[in-house]
Amino acid sequence: MKAGVFQFCPAFGEVRSNLERITTALSGSGADLMVLPELCLSGYQFTSLDEVRALSEPVPDGPTVQALSDLARSRKMFIVAGLSEQADGKIFNSAVLIGPEGWMGTYRKTHLFFEETLWFSPGDTGFRLWEAEGVRLGLMVCFDWTFPEAARSLALAGADIICHPANLILPYCPDAMVTRSIENRVFTLTANRTGTESRGAKPALRFIGKSQATGVRGEILFRMGEEEEGVRVTEFDPLAARDKRANEYNDLFGDRRAGMYDLE
Amino acid sequence: MKAGVFQFCPAFGEVRSNLERITTALSGSGADLMVLPELCLSGYQFTSLDEVRALSEPVPDGPTVQALSDLARSRKMFIVAGLSEQADGKIFNSAVLIGPEGWMGTYRKTHLFFEETLWFSPGDTGFRLWEAEGVRLGLMVCFDWTFPEAARSLALAGADIICHPANLILPYCPDAMVTRSIENRVFTLTANRTGTESRGAKPALRFIGKSQATGVRGEILFRMGEEEEGVRVTEFDPLAARDKRANEYNDLFGDRRAGMYDLE
Repeated sequence: MKAGVFQFCPAFGEVRSNLERITTALSGSGADLMVLPELCLSGYQFTSLDEVRALSEPVPDGPTVQALSDLARSRKMFIVAGLSEQADGKIFNSAVLIGPEGWMGTYRKTHLFFEETLWFSPGDTGFRLWEAEGVRLGLMVCFDWTFPEAARSLALAGADIICHPANLILPYCPDAMVTRSIENRVFTLTANRTGTESRGAKPALRFIGKSQATGVRGEILFRMGEEEEGVRVTEFDPLAARDKRANEYNDLFGDRRAGMYDLE
Repeated sequence: MKAGVFQFCPAFGEVRSNLERITTALSGSGADLMVLPELCLSGYQFTSLDEVRALSEPVPDGPTVQALSDLARSRKMFIVAGLSEQADGKIFNSAVLIGPEGWMGTYRKTHLFFEETLWFSPGDTGFRLWEAEGVRLGLMVCFDWTFPEAARSLALAGADIICHPANLILPYCPDAMVTRSIENRVFTLTANRTGTESRGAKPALRFIGKSQATGVRGEILFRMGEEEEGVRVTEFDPLAARDKRANEYNDLFGDRRAGMYDLE
């Protein structure tokens, strides 16, 4: 399977032009699966709830999911994209999964970071999987990485690849994703953005790039540069994630001793 | 608080001389808390159950706990040491906590690695804490690091410092302990050993050293060299681990959403 990310700097508020850049980049990727950053249509640093609303859209009927569905259909690919979702009078920081047959499902970010708590409702979907031509995909968004329960829930449910749209500003995540892959024996694809946003009186946010694909033994399949923009694709066998054996005596899931843990 | 590790190469089977080296090293450490490697009296690469039995001892009545208790009493310090424990006809890969008042408690390794499964019974103590002059100490041993539930259980119970005796041969743990500290906002002290063991017809095991102290924001307070032997001590305020706030909007424990996780 060829899978990768498109790391770029979305222009704040420019949904249409961001979508055009994405469409062009993904069309030429040659990948079976592409992951895009968190909130990659709207930009990140909102200054009011009205602004967030104006840059949000319903799923699957909004223009972004429709456009990405057309792309996925024509290129026979799967796409994971972070966007601001309007639903039931709420707004969620969501990631959508789209395939050749169109919209497949939505994950709503469970753990909101910093001022996201002002704009978005906490995700209500939980951690679930979708099957893409026999490959089981799980979704989580950015700050979810900090909570080991997020990747663990997806991996225990059977995820082969964790698709992870992000807008990282702190330096910790890329190395932590190595741990997430090792402890769960899963592939992870973190798609981060680049650039700086400085809106109104708010302190500027600088995003760290470093989008990363990580293998089941924690090997870094690629890590992009801090300011690098573009598509990066790698090839791997996602079914390798089904084998949780670390050696002839240890199986990372079989060795779990749930009765010994106290996680409430 | 001054806390550290003694990283060294135990001589296989030489309990008495290993104990002498430990006593000399810890006496001069000037530390309030010292963590020693896993199985640091016996060595690691056993070739038969008889051999394991002969190198095991009861806790707290065996000679090691008695000698370390004398040391802890005279130096007014706390010591965590990995040893092979005989109890109820079983043998456990254990870590003991000893303070100025003597033996305080024992943790029996939950997740056994590789051929340890041939010699040791799986730990039955679970993850609990002990208080050392107001500081809450949790214990885990080596391979436990791979299972996020181990450090998580200790941190949710209220651990300030996770003391982590180890005999690491794979390269992953030191970086992963950064993730363990970040995700739980706890201090971690990993005491590893150095050297190579090659016993009988078994392939040689080379231990990676790199004992490490990590702060609550993932900062590496020290990381020892691969072959470096000796005491390393750092100073920090362990109560910093009680503050789980990442910023004005996020508290790493308050933000957990247990109802959204599926960890069985």
